[in-house]
Amino acid sequence: EKAQNVLIVKKKNDIKSENALIEIATWLHEHSNVNIIVEPEVAEQFHKKLPFVHVIAKEYSRTVDFAITLGGDGTMLHLSSLFPKAVPPVVCFSFGTLGFLMSFQFNQYKRVLSDVMEGKVFLTLRMRLFCSLHEASGKRISIDGKEVGKYDRQVMNEVSLHRGRYPHLTSIGCYVDDNFLTECVVNINGRLIVATPTGSTAYSLSAGGPIVHPSVQSIVLTPICPRSLSFRTVLLPPSANIHMKVYKIKKKILYRVYGSLQSFALNIFLLQIGESSRSQIEVSIDGQEIFMLEKGEYVQVRMSKYPIPCVTRAGEGKDWANDINELLKWNQNFGRSLS
Amino acid sequence: EKAQNVLIVKKKNDIKSENALIEIATWLHEHSNVNIIVEPEVAEQFHKKLPFVHVIAKEYSRTVDFAITLGGDGTMLHLSSLFPKAVPPVVCFSFGTLGFLMSFQFNQYKRVLSDVMEGKVFLTLRMRLFCSLHEASGKRISIDGKEVGKYDRQVMNEVSLHRGRYPHLTSIGCYVDDNFLTECVVNINGRLIVATPTGSTAYSLSAGGPIVHPSVQSIVLTPICPRSLSFRTVLLPPSANIHMKVYKIKKKILYRVYGSLQSFALNIFLLQIGESSRSQIEVSIDGQEIFMLEKGEYVQVRMSKYPIPCVTRAGEGKDWANDINELLKWNQNFGRSLS
Amino acid sequence: EKAQNVLIVKKKNDIKSENALIEIATWLHEHSNVNIIVEPEVAEQFHKKLPFVHVIAKEYSRTVDFAITLGGDGTMLHLSSLFPKAVPPVVCFSFGTLGFLMSFQFNQYKRVLSDVMEGKVFLTLRMRLFCSLHEASGKRISIDGKEVGKYDRQVMNEVSLHRGRYPHLTSIGCYVDDNFLTECVVNINGRLIVATPTGSTAYSLSAGGPIVHPSVQSIVLTPICPRSLSFRTVLLPPSANIHMKVYKIKKKILYRVYGSLQSFALNIFLLQIGESSRSQIEVSIDGQEIFMLEKGEYVQVRMSKYPIPCVTRAGEGKDWANDINELLKWNQNFGRSLS
Amino acid sequence: EKAQNVLIVKKKNDIKSENALIEIATWLHEHSNVNIIVEPEVAEQFHKKLPFVHVIAKEYSRTVDFAITLGGDGTMLHLSSLFPKAVPPVVCFSFGTLGFLMSFQFNQYKRVLSDVMEGKVFLTLRMRLFCSLHEASGKRISIDGKEVGKYDRQVMNEVSLHRGRYPHLTSIGCYVDDNFLTECVVNINGRLIVATPTGSTAYSLSAGGPIVHPSVQSIVLTPICPRSLSFRTVLLPPSANIHMKVYKIKKKILYRVYGSLQSFALNIFLLQIGESSRSQIEVSIDGQEIFMLEKGEYVQVRMSKYPIPCVTRAGEGKDWANDINELLKWNQNFGRSLS
Repeated sequence: EKAQNVLIVKKKNDIKSENALIEIATWLHEHSNVNIIVEPEVAEQFHKKLPFVHVIAKEYSRTVDFAITLGGDGTMLHLSSLFPKAVPPVVCFSFGTLGFLMSFQFNQYKRVLSDVMEGKVFLTLRMRLFCSLHEASGKRISIDGKEVGKYDRQVMNEVSLHRGRYPHLTSIGCYVDDNFLTECVVNINGRLIVATPTGSTAYSLSAGGPIVHPSVQSIVLTPICPRSLSFRTVLLPPSANIHMKVYKIKKKILYRVYGSLQSFALNIFLLQIGESSRSQIEVSIDGQEIFMLEKGEYVQVRMSKYPIPCVTRAGEGKDWANDINELLKWNQNFGRSLS
Repeated sequence: EKAQNVLIVKKKNDIKSENALIEIATWLHEHSNVNIIVEPEVAEQFHKKLPFVHVIAKEYSRTVDFAITLGGDGTMLHLSSLFPKAVPPVVCFSFGTLGFLMSFQFNQYKRVLSDVMEGKVFLTLRMRLFCSLHEASGKRISIDGKEVGKYDRQVMNEVSLHRGRYPHLTSIGCYVDDNFLTECVVNINGRLIVATPTGSTAYSLSAGGPIVHPSVQSIVLTPICPRSLSFRTVLLPPSANIHMKVYKIKKKILYRVYGSLQSFALNIFLLQIGESSRSQIEVSIDGQEIFMLEKGEYVQVRMSKYPIPCVTRAGEGKDWANDINELLKWNQNFGRSLS
Repeated sequence: EKAQNVLIVKKKNDIKSENALIEIATWLHEHSNVNIIVEPEVAEQFHKKLPFVHVIAKEYSRTVDFAITLGGDGTMLHLSSLFPKAVPPVVCFSFGTLGFLMSFQFNQYKRVLSDVMEGKVFLTLRMRLFCSLHEASGKRISIDGKEVGKYDRQVMNEVSLHRGRYPHLTSIGCYVDDNFLTECVVNINGRLIVATPTGSTAYSLSAGGPIVHPSVQSIVLTPICPRSLSFRTVLLPPSANIHMKVYKIKKKILYRVYGSLQSFALNIFLLQIGESSRSQIEVSIDGQEIFMLEKGEYVQVRMSKYPIPCVTRAGEGKDWANDINELLKWNQNFGRSLS
Repeated sequence: EKAQNVLIVKKKNDIKSENALIEIATWLHEHSNVNIIVEPEVAEQFHKKLPFVHVIAKEYSRTVDFAITLGGDGTMLHLSSLFPKAVPPVVCFSFGTLGFLMSFQFNQYKRVLSDVMEGKVFLTLRMRLFCSLHEASGKRISIDGKEVGKYDRQVMNEVSLHRGRYPHLTSIGCYVDDNFLTECVVNINGRLIVATPTGSTAYSLSAGGPIVHPSVQSIVLTPICPRSLSFRTVLLPPSANIHMKVYKIKKKILYRVYGSLQSFALNIFLLQIGESSRSQIEVSIDGQEIFMLEKGEYVQVRMSKYPIPCVTRAGEGKDWANDINELLKWNQNFGRSLS
């Protein structure tokens, strides 16, 4: 039987995750015949303690049989970004409190990994979104004519459109399957969030959106509209093809900035960036990457063909119920009688 | 080829629907060889104008090839209640404004019905819920020992649990797949709503819930909790098995009632109903039927095996986007500049 | 110096409150020369243990120098209803958890009452509302032509208009200072709440309303509208004169009721009450009294001339901040890092 | 009788406001003996068309008898910033749609100004806030040891604390009268808004806050907390002394930025600003000025001694009711029957 390739991804600059990496890699090395793969900088950092780990140049999608994350939800977001195509089963370990991805406690790793290597696991398919950036003509945005597809991204949590750091007032037109759905003015408060069910408990939740179970197949559209009382989250079917287009720049907002910051750098900066760049819309992907769109350009968001198969316990339902009660403090009753 | 059986259901006591029935039944009679079926009281009312219509004693599920509703969403709810099992394709016609079921304008009926009879249609499967009432032991609630299953119901919009008309304070425990999810105190304000995506725009919406596209496969749980600031809608996967159980009666609330009403009948009434009935929880099905649950009894709600296949236009997406903008007035921008 | 008259009001059927009454009355009798007044049924119940207490026939407003409540917020509501005119300073004692009225712990009663009798106290004026019922002509609603003013009420928490127990769909027109403000459809979900700042943390809060500090002078209008996405609480100035008028009955809703209840009493009842009574609007005062309004009739709500002077501690601000955190669980942070 | 001094402030770069300025100044010059004062740059721009206007070097608070604004709410904000102390009566004129400040239509200026000059007006006192910036020690923040009070500001709409443009995660501690009230994590979504009743319909509203009538005396605290389900607006009494303190910097967030913008200027910029400046909290005053606070520093917000007396019509209540219906589209009913 061919040896399995297992990728281990850990939280950056976190001593708990580093210790866990050493322990889990050593245990796997001693008790199984898997090939252990880590990211290049991790291999370098641990080349003495973990001399047996591998680094691969090829696409992870083609070579990794299963993956392990050591850390919280942020580590999972990072793993997602490493797999622009198919994702192998992922086992998430966390330390102390359970994260929202219904991860396993680290101290159970021997039993859990034995089960995984024997294929005795339950999987939850976590939907991802696929996001691409387009010129007004529909063409992919490129730089120097050769970067087609460079800005395509797999999205685990959400795509968020907002004004960005330069004061102006603009609006975003939102279309579903080429039908106009709504227009959203974005100033310092406004934004438009397209989230997965997994991402529903991140930014979308704080904007008033619902809690969507990760097994639901739906695209969660939450507008935050400073100029409307009647916005509300909309749940679209997984087949929806969403376009969000930068409309005209409505207005420049001029304000003064005080503080040590502006002493030098900011003034230089504000001089150097032209008018156009001040009126861009920022597109955030999973809170990790930011792209900038000019007037007329648009983002396309659809369900990705490549979900993330997460290894879960048999009692997953119980974990989820616990999580929304314990972590999100959902529906907490008052501490006394109202009458 | 065997003649198709078409059931026509119309809004009650509505002159537009009656005229539409006559026109459409006459046209079908003259231009096709379908058997036209109506409800018994309709047949009786129109036996002169529509002598050719049929009434059937058998189960509609087994005999009807397609159905037509003439009226609004309420007529569709009624049709749903006629089909406790499989539902044939349904064509909805409305008058004037389009309802939320993305119905057809009545004046297009010739073209639409021709297409339906030739099978040239698009269908949207609208999820239904299946709701049953149980004793604490799990046994179906029955009366006189012989009514098992009498209270099973197909739900098109929502199941709603609330205190009912007699003043008391109680609470409902909510379980998903046998895992405790939350407890909801229900007084005059509180309730717990389990809705389909179709029903998301009815009661659930007014309780702050999101707008769910009818094609999404999900069960929408919206608590309205007078004793919590942190309630929020939860979207469960279609596989979820929900139990809502009447917990202990927390407290009687005594208040005085003034007005002509109480002069005689109410006093009689309040004397006659015992203590126990005052502390019941009401279970509303689609806003049409109300069942009463005692302490310890519970409602089970799951996705129904029998969705409603609704005939839709090709441009359904556009209709839906129009509906949430025009009918629900979603995300309406302010009428002037805030700056 | 004339002896002070102190009224003691206790929670009904509550052993803690009864013991507290005996202890506090005995202590006052032995350590001060106040006249202790209780409600008639309390005097009767405790005529052996507290032979020295008084019952008065006259209006409490004219005779009571200060009042003591033993119980929770409900006891305070009852006290409020005993004073249709001016209210003397009130000291609230509670047991165990502090209620929302920022009461004193019972075990501190000796120090607190000594301070009160010496006039060394801080007072918070809690606004009340004044509510009256009117015919379409503006005349007070009366029965038998002689009951003018019978239905005037002082309101400590809120006036709430809702559909009541008989299924129908109607709407309420809301006017401020004779200007039309809004129309609110009231079905099973909808209601219109006019609350004091004290009442803002009761029903209004569960309908999405803000938390208003009891010292703010404002009338809190919270609509719960099942047919609008854009409802939001409005805070009116204390000078506002609010009229809420029963508009036309829009529609009867017919539904079937199942359960042991309806076996006999309900059928009798539904037969006896006429059509008109089924379409009434219920007006709830502080959740304790219910009045019924017919089409065309209206409720007038204004700030009362008679607030409730509540004795508070010096550190009242701290208590309030604690209360909204501890009791209402306001703004509780999630239990883990989102990243 | 001494001639009155009237200050006219107009919207910048707006042709309607410029024409209105010329018309109104000319009319005043010809029909009254008021001294017309404008801002220096306006005097310069119109020195040919309006040779008779004045510019004053002294404090406006001491010299202006009444003021006129020509423009929308933004112009009013500008006027507010010109009066750090007492404000004279202000008449607001707008063009076309009425703004939220219940302004007068421009075409009625002759009648309105005649009434004002004769003192025949109603005034609404619009509360302002007073905001000052402090070091951890309580000392006012200064630069070069001599700028005490430079950063004191009168606030017409709101003070808003948020993360600012550099990615990091921090939190703000909120105290009322030196009592801890709450902690609010501010990331890209989170902020803490302290608004006047006038400002309640600006940023606070879009964060879910209530609509507060401008005559209510209250301070509106609206947290937007990405890590809490239970945040809700709190209305504090006008006596409240609010401190909002920058807590520890919780975490740096690293992300990549793509787009033409970052090509040169941003990199330079990000290099030049130090670590510390990246973790500042931005304090926005009326959306026009931004100050930056470091860890430990705090903002103090209290009711200002200097409200703005706005000239209103007799039927002000009707205007306000119209405004929240027409402009904010409050409580708009659905466009069709739900049943």
